[in-house]
Amino acid sequence: MECPIINIIDYKENAEVLLNMQNREELIRKDVVDRVNIILNNIKERGDQALIEYTNKFDSTLINIKNICVTEEEIKYAYDKVDKKFLEAIYFAKKNIEEFHSKQKENSWIDTSKEEIMLGQIIRPLERVAIYVPGGTASYPSSVLMNAVPAKVAGVKEIVMITPPSKNGEINPNILVAADIAGVDKIYKIGGAQAVAAMAFGTKTIKKVDKIVGPGNIYVAMAKRSVYGHVDIDMIAGPSEILIIADKYANPKFIAADLMSQAEHDKIASAILVTNSLDIAKNVQLEIKNQIENLKRKEIIKSSLKNYGGILLVKDINEAINIANNIAPEHLELMVKNPFNILNEIKNAGSIFLGEFSPEPLGDYIAGPNHVLPTNGTARFFSPLSVEDFMKKSNFLCYSQNKLLNVKDKIVKLANTEGLTAHANSIKVRFE
Amino acid sequence: MECPIINIIDYKENAEVLLNMQNREELIRKDVVDRVNIILNNIKERGDQALIEYTNKFDSTLINIKNICVTEEEIKYAYDKVDKKFLEAIYFAKKNIEEFHSKQKENSWIDTSKEEIMLGQIIRPLERVAIYVPGGTASYPSSVLMNAVPAKVAGVKEIVMITPPSKNGEINPNILVAADIAGVDKIYKIGGAQAVAAMAFGTKTIKKVDKIVGPGNIYVAMAKRSVYGHVDIDMIAGPSEILIIADKYANPKFIAADLMSQAEHDKIASAILVTNSLDIAKNVQLEIKNQIENLKRKEIIKSSLKNYGGILLVKDINEAINIANNIAPEHLELMVKNPFNILNEIKNAGSIFLGEFSPEPLGDYIAGPNHVLPTNGTARFFSPLSVEDFMKKSNFLCYSQNKLLNVKDKIVKLANTEGLTAHANSIKVRFE
Repeated sequence: MECPIINIIDYKENAEVLLNMQNREELIRKDVVDRVNIILNNIKERGDQALIEYTNKFDSTLINIKNICVTEEEIKYAYDKVDKKFLEAIYFAKKNIEEFHSKQKENSWIDTSKEEIMLGQIIRPLERVAIYVPGGTASYPSSVLMNAVPAKVAGVKEIVMITPPSKNGEINPNILVAADIAGVDKIYKIGGAQAVAAMAFGTKTIKKVDKIVGPGNIYVAMAKRSVYGHVDIDMIAGPSEILIIADKYANPKFIAADLMSQAEHDKIASAILVTNSLDIAKNVQLEIKNQIENLKRKEIIKSSLKNYGGILLVKDINEAINIANNIAPEHLELMVKNPFNILNEIKNAGSIFLGEFSPEPLGDYIAGPNHVLPTNGTARFFSPLSVEDFMKKSNFLCYSQNKLLNVKDKIVKLANTEGLTAHANSIKVRFE
Repeated sequence: MECPIINIIDYKENAEVLLNMQNREELIRKDVVDRVNIILNNIKERGDQALIEYTNKFDSTLINIKNICVTEEEIKYAYDKVDKKFLEAIYFAKKNIEEFHSKQKENSWIDTSKEEIMLGQIIRPLERVAIYVPGGTASYPSSVLMNAVPAKVAGVKEIVMITPPSKNGEINPNILVAADIAGVDKIYKIGGAQAVAAMAFGTKTIKKVDKIVGPGNIYVAMAKRSVYGHVDIDMIAGPSEILIIADKYANPKFIAADLMSQAEHDKIASAILVTNSLDIAKNVQLEIKNQIENLKRKEIIKSSLKNYGGILLVKDINEAINIANNIAPEHLELMVKNPFNILNEIKNAGSIFLGEFSPEPLGDYIAGPNHVLPTNGTARFFSPLSVEDFMKKSNFLCYSQNKLLNVKDKIVKLANTEGLTAHANSIKVRFE
């Protein structure tokens, strides 16, 4: 008998299967951390010179400090090179992303409800942000938009992109055009841990930033983790995942396609269907077999579905919802007759796709909500990338003499209880 | 000639002095990291047993898994023991903190502006959060309020406090009462890296949480850094600091008291005055000398002011503002005639105190804004602890068949450009 590409598993008898699907790569690899720290220290100490050496070595290219920055001519040339339909789609996506993220923008506020007391919170954009964009096949113009547009909407003054150059010192024109449309101000042809270090510490040529965002390989991820605190970073992205909840009314053809669209990202991506219908389960299995043959990345898909994918049979949709909340998937599709009826029950998910005409790639590219999402179960506590990730807050307060007098004794009492007499003194001297 | 406790420095000729003041302890100590990782692994593998062993060893106490949790009787007894004036002040502070933080609460939203398209963002509280409270002299009831109240306002279902017990297995009654008033649901008598590990990974007795917040010693800080990703954490607090901007109208007595109130926290705390008035500078120097004698922690204050404090003479208030923005102080006092006139120029600060009757301890204890603030220059990109730190977001989207058809070609184009044919397939199968 031929082995199915994806297995059907009875959840009641195999609840532990979920643990295995979740048990993917460890987040920290010590050998990488050690190598990354050497790079970071070298950039800190030798600045531009080390940056050029690493870039030419790791990217097998030949650039110098003078041509490290993409020129206006290069961007102009990129516009000439890209497909016009692609350009149109990028403009359209950018508009939708901008619209969605504009709604996230919070205002500074002031509380004036008490006489002679003013309290509030000032919310400001970060001043300078770097966006990391991987080179090679993982170089996605859509991710450029998803990282840069929220920063732009936030009002960040300078958005810098860093991305490794090809062997002839060039950057993919699709990436250049997407960056330009998204409002990126400056693009450096550098990548890897060395680029992260340059952005975090600054060099003679490169001004340090306040935050570094964007996906990268394990070296980039470990470098970001190491510089956290010197600058802010976005979350460290783990392997991607989708979970689909389907009832008997769902379309197995659509489900099969959506599972595979997630699985094609990576051999350790995870695609799981949870359904209470054996018919749906069997038909999805069949559909995957039919559809997979035409897909470029079918070997990746097979491997991912075999090791980290599955079809879980459950007794009802409530059980499916519980499983989703435990897994806290990056992407959650609700392929049930009335998806809005169960939206309230979903506690943990990065992005939720409702109904059969809201497939995950709609959110990846066009709809507007961000596609940078918490992975690996972290939707329990992390959130999608948003405008607020590019803003910072300050509290402020102003009391009159009279109002301070009213609370004087309470402050002095608390300060003395904590053994902090200079705190108490700071209040007392004002009324001596 | 007697050495002054705090030096007056002409900024024009000694701009580099600021760098030295800022150059405090390194954030990571490798020996500590190694020891912490052993503890974390032990808790992960041996759970409760390791937790009890470490607790009894490091806290020189004798507890077991049955009495690790504070009982209702212990809390009742604590209320009997605490000073009534203290209790009153805690109730008052709690009310103000609650009021301020209630204004930070964001709503879930849905965008219904486009027909047949629904987009939005669901904002929910985290389910379970742990608050770390140090033992001994650094055990501050005010910090219990500042960490627990925002979690409560956010709607967190279960707030767990962890704090190391004394030798006789007790917790400071002031801490117990503050926790109870703030709405803490459960208190465990555990501390150190072992407590952080138990909260991050869970044990048989202790349920894992989604986020760990609160200050602690270097072991706690390193443990939090290590479990980041398994759970969320708040920022890792560095040494505390204050910067005061004063013009000639300011009161040197108040300035002196406020500088010392920050300096008493720690030998590596930093207290800096920036002024354009030599008179103010000299009088602050004098006032510090006069006031310090009555303060309990005068040795800490002297050490802190000598190594990380100073009075900077600048040419005008604009220069003072620039310095403040570069330092990005945790606390910033604006002791100028019209503080609101310069509020807009302040780009980087954790909390801003306006005018002569808004001293920093007012914010530490009573006013309502949070006292958990970004330190060590991180106000450039981090924010005060807030309700939002206890919430998570999910995006959602729902398209009709018709609306998906409208964008079909654009999605397919972008997916194919990125080489992701299974993404394109997911859209195409819906219209075959």
